[in-house]
Formats: sequence, C-alpha cells, structure tokens
Amino acid sequence: MNVTLRGRTRHFRTVCFDARTNRVHLIEQRLLPHRFEIVATGDFRETARAIRDMVVRGAPAIAATAAYGLAQGVAAFRGTNQAKFARHVQVVFQTLKNARPTAVDPVNAMSRVLFAMCRETTVEAQQQAALRVAGQFADESVAECEAIGRHGMKLIRSGMRVLTHCNAGWLACVDVGTATAPLYAAQAKGRKFHVFCDETRPRCQGSTLTAWELAQQGISHEVIADNAAGHLMQRGEIDLVIVGSDRTLGRTGEVANKIGTYTKAVLAKRHGIPFYVAIPLSTIDWNLRHGADIPIEERAESEVLGAWGAGEIPNSKSQIPTGGKQSSRPFKRAFVRIANPASHARNPGFDVTPPDLITGIITPRGIFKPRELWRRRERLMPA
Amino acid sequence: MNVTLRGRTRHFRTVCFDARTNRVHLIEQRLLPHRFEIVATGDFRETARAIRDMVVRGAPAIAATAAYGLAQGVAAFRGTNQAKFARHVQVVFQTLKNARPTAVDPVNAMSRVLFAMCRETTVEAQQQAALRVAGQFADESVAECEAIGRHGMKLIRSGMRVLTHCNAGWLACVDVGTATAPLYAAQAKGRKFHVFCDETRPRCQGSTLTAWELAQQGISHEVIADNAAGHLMQRGEIDLVIVGSDRTLGRTGEVANKIGTYTKAVLAKRHGIPFYVAIPLSTIDWNLRHGADIPIEERAESEVLGAWGAGEIPNSKSQIPTGGKQSSRPFKRAFVRIANPASHARNPGFDVTPPDLITGIITPRGIFKPRELWRRRERLMPA
Repeated sequence: MNVTLRGRTRHFRTVCFDARTNRVHLIEQRLLPHRFEIVATGDFRETARAIRDMVVRGAPAIAATAAYGLAQGVAAFRGTNQAKFARHVQVVFQTLKNARPTAVDPVNAMSRVLFAMCRETTVEAQQQAALRVAGQFADESVAECEAIGRHGMKLIRSGMRVLTHCNAGWLACVDVGTATAPLYAAQAKGRKFHVFCDETRPRCQGSTLTAWELAQQGISHEVIADNAAGHLMQRGEIDLVIVGSDRTLGRTGEVANKIGTYTKAVLAKRHGIPFYVAIPLSTIDWNLRHGADIPIEERAESEVLGAWGAGEIPNSKSQIPTGGKQSSRPFKRAFVRIANPASHARNPGFDVTPPDLITGIITPRGIFKPRELWRRRERLMPA
Repeated sequence: MNVTLRGRTRHFRTVCFDARTNRVHLIEQRLLPHRFEIVATGDFRETARAIRDMVVRGAPAIAATAAYGLAQGVAAFRGTNQAKFARHVQVVFQTLKNARPTAVDPVNAMSRVLFAMCRETTVEAQQQAALRVAGQFADESVAECEAIGRHGMKLIRSGMRVLTHCNAGWLACVDVGTATAPLYAAQAKGRKFHVFCDETRPRCQGSTLTAWELAQQGISHEVIADNAAGHLMQRGEIDLVIVGSDRTLGRTGEVANKIGTYTKAVLAKRHGIPFYVAIPLSTIDWNLRHGADIPIEERAESEVLGAWGAGEIPNSKSQIPTGGKQSSRPFKRAFVRIANPASHARNPGFDVTPPDLITGIITPRGIFKPRELWRRRERLMPA
C-alpha cells in the first residue's frame, strides 16, 4: 500500500524480492510507527533472523518471507552437484523453519516451493522454479487479500464508523491486509468513512501499526483505549466491527484472535452491531473440533506491566516525531514501567470468539456464516 | 491502610491534619507506585495547589483535603476582627473551591465546616469549630468506607477470584476505600482470595494504584490488560466483580464510573458473574433523571497516544525499582509516545452502566438492587 516519504507517495509491499541482487526487502516493522525503513537481507540466514527478530510479523507476511528466503538460499548455491544441492536446500529450509518454530504458515509456503522444485531435474531449473513459485505465492497472497476486499467492501457505506482491533492490515500480509482489505477497497470506490482503532494493549498493534497504515492511506481514523469501545457503541457511534483471525475453526466457526476480540464481539452483540472476521483461506483449521482446545499463549508479563514507545524526557518534546508526515529524524525507543514494581501480571495473548457472536466471515471466496464454513469446505479449502 | 517502608509497616491515611504545625499531610500520589512520599502543605494555598495538581485525587480524598484546607486557612488568621475574618474565610473557601472547579465533593465538605462555624460567635471558637468538623468529616468518611466493607465482605469467600477496575481504593478516600473495602474487611477475617486488577488504560490507575495498595496490604493479585477480563471470565477464572462509582443515579440505578466499567458489566452479565458497585452515600445523585444526561468528560488525547511510567534506557534496568519492597531509589518519570505520531485519539473518561447489568450496590447502609435506591432514599440520603 502507500507510504509517503518526504512528500512523495510510493507503493510498497511488506515483503518483496530483488532477483538481480538476490535480496529480500522487508519493512522494518519494529521501528514503526516512529520511523519507516526498508531492510534488505543479504542471505537466507539474515532472512531467517529477520523473521525470528520480528522485523516482519503476521502469518501471511512471514509465510511469503520464508518462501522468498528459501528461493534466495537456493539461488546462492554455486555448482551442479545434485546431492550437495539437496543438502544445501535442507539447511536453508530448516534454518527458515526454526526462525519461528511454532508457526505453520512459513512451512506451508516453503513446502509449495519444494514441491515445484522436485518437478525439475537440474540445479538451475530448480533454482528458477523456487524463485517463480515464491513469487507466485506472494502474488496469490495479495490476490487473496484483494478478493477479501471485493467481498467485504459491500458492508461499508459512506458515513459509517468502523471499529477494528489489533493489526490485520497490509503490514501483517504481503499487501492490502485482511481486516483492512474491505476498508481500502471501499476507499478506492470513493466511499468516506471513519475507523476507530482499538489501542490493543498490551502490544498496542492498533495504535501503532493499524493507525500508521490508515494515516498513510489517508483514511479518517482515531485511536481509542480498549476500554472505550463499549461506551462508543452505547452512544451509537459504531456501525460495524471488522477484525482478523489467527485461527478459525472450520468445523465450529470459532475464531481465535488477539486478546480483547471476544470482548468486542460480546459488546457488538448487545448493541446489535454487525461483527465480521476477515481471513485468508490458510487461517481455517479444518481439524480441531473445539475452540477450548486452541492453545492460548501466555506471553511475558513485562508487556502488561509497561509499554514501549518513542521516548521523551519531560519538557523536551523534540525527540518525538509529530505531525502528519513520516519522520526520518532519530528517536529513542524506550520502555517505561507503568505498573506497581512489586506486582505481577497475567498476559494471555489470544481469545476465542464463539460463532453466535459473529455476523459473518469474510473470505476470498465470499462471506459466510461461521457455522456455514464446514458445509462449504470444498469451496473453502485451498486448491 | 498499611505501607511498608524499609521493612517497617505503618498505618497511613491518604490525608490527615497536624493541628500543632497547622499542616495538611498528603500522600504524594503522582509518585506512586514508584515512590512513597508524604508532603505537608504549609498553608491553604499550598493545599489548594495539591488538589489542583493531583497530589491527591478521588472524590472522598479531595473532599477531606478541602475541609482540612479550610480549617488550616481559618486557623492561620490572626486577630479578633469578625469582618476581616469573614473576608479571609471567603478567600480560603474560594481558593480551595477553584482548585477543582467542577468537583462537587470539596464544596459539600467545606459547606459542612462553614455551617458549624456559623453557630459560633468569636473568631477563636469558629477556628476551633472548623478544625473539629473537618476532622469529623474525615473520620465519618473512614467510618462510611468501613461500613461498606462490613456489608460487602459477605460476598467474598476464600478461594474466590475477584476482578476490579480502576482505583476505588483507600488512596481515593481518606482510608479503606470503597471497592477495596470489602476486600480489606474479608482479609481481616482471614479469608484468602485473589484479585485481578484491570490495568485501566489510559491512565492505568489499576496497575499503578490498586496494584500498589493490594501489594502493600499483602493481598494476592495480578494485573491484566483491559482486554483480558473477557477471556478469563470465559475460562471460569473470575467469580465476582467489584468496582467503584463517580456518580450513581438514585432515581434509575445507573452507575457512572471510569471508562471500561460498562464493558466489564456486559461481560459479567454474559457469564452470570455477580457485578457489584461500592459507593459512599455522597456518590448518589438524587436529581438527575437519565444516565444519558451525565456529562462524559473528553480528556486529553495524549493519555491514549502514550503512557507515563518509570523510565528505562534499554539495557540499563537499574533505574526501575523492582522486587517486593517499596523503593526509595531515585527514578525517572518518563512519557513514551506509543501511537502513530500522525494519528489522533478519542478519550472519553467515563461510561454509564445500566441497572440491568448490576447485581447490587454496596453502600454504608447495606446492599441494594440498583432500582431499589429510590424507594430506599430516606434511608440512603446523608443526614
């Protein structure tokens, strides 16, 4: 999507590949929203490190990064010896897999690259196949998000006030995003609407990443504390909720997503506000039978006890970039301890929203009732 | 309540008065939870400044501070000239009133002092009456909280997990607190229970003040992000919710309290978890007829866009006091900008919870259904 740097607006993908230099280009997301920077990884080990260290995050984005990383590692092989090449491919695959050992999307994406390579017989043909399929994977990922946008934009009329939670935007994908796709598609049709971004404590992906995306795209928006959505709904100031999902159960229609999503769904139900979940097909888990069986990661308590941001010494505002333009000024990334020093925290990272609270699931193949997914599984399983 | 300093546990009130030196002693709440400090104001202007600058906050606490500040200002008058004295009293009253112009509690408390003074004829007798009645007011405020505790502790059994939101603790009162009173009373009876403190963004009074109080008092507790309560309820980990109130409508049973309270009430209702509101009698508004008419303060957006805490430069953890003991080490109070620099925020400070979501209102005169308040108004109006 668009990023404006020094007055010039350019289009960027979260991840892309330069075949000429054999480098993967990534938006350095750990500096956002305070600074925009592209990093280019020189080899597959650097790409794996970028995945591990959260330079890039979000399931579709790390999947594409791993696919490109595999193609990058494969391309760096010099020679024609098939046995040596096979061993090299295995090292590259394992290195990228181990960067985020519990994530399933990078493995799925790299498997597609491997299948294509297996159809070729020479090292060179396999290298070319890896590059081609990694690119295809990224393009299809974008096409899927665009399809979510085409279906989802029907829900958005001019004048609407839309609530979103966390970041299921283009920064989490290759481009366009999932929960944001309907917003960007509606904007392209000329519709004017307003978005409330839940801050999304403890990691604040709403006030940092989603707000940054919407600002860059010129979409009217405001950040709210997670506590404020109920009040705004009560006063009739929210018309629609769209969120993403980390895992959606195809058998039950239950949706696992960032902690706080369930709360917003309960509130939306009470106020009769439509609650939609936007997902790529890879998010659907066709195996698990109960939402209660989804493992809920308990994250570091320091996330709840403090906050990261751009540091400021009181009475010296100059260190914080402000105003409408993306700053390239240096800033100090700083942590503040907020909570009582002697206290501990619980920090569940996700929650599970049951199907009775969900109006519809927006997929690249249309919008479905959550309990409809299983009946439509032939249509919804990836090819 | 108790504060442990350098291994010694002592009892403190949030506000008290030293008649010998004519000083008001206040806990410097802006330094909590990172440092405990008592400030003594030398005259009524300093006391007014402490109210204005939030050294002390919470309706009952600023009411007692204003009453003491009036007694302090009155006591400083030298002479016997009644006319001059009357003019002086007016200046003191206005100065303290203007410290928090929209708050009604300080004015009510100071009015009680004035009424008592009017019954006397000499300057000296009036000065003594002011001092006596200010002290009475503070003592009655504590007695009211203790009565809330006696009624409310019946709700708390050993093994329970209690959720609370924001700070309606002793720091907001003269002592004991409102929402915390049942907890402290149950603890005194030897009951063991666990408290989840909602962080309460944007100002984080839950993770700072309530967590500090509970830690000092030795009550088992954990801080959670405001997003996490719904998930914990869903998993059966919360048995009871107790919150405070800034204004409760006697005619309808609607409860205005810190933003996010309504959300917790909606969640509690869905999960069949009892939801109680603990209030002193002065919190009941017998005039207003509709909760929608309660003005909701829209606060500074910087509260949502960033956070205050104890500053830390990465890789230099020494600046943050940690561990179980209250630190007296110097620390740097620091603000971090969290949100996208180009984005704005909405920041409503309060919300209104309707009576159908409230199991009971815990008052110093017993526990009532919210819709019962009006019928019992003779019993509930302050003498």
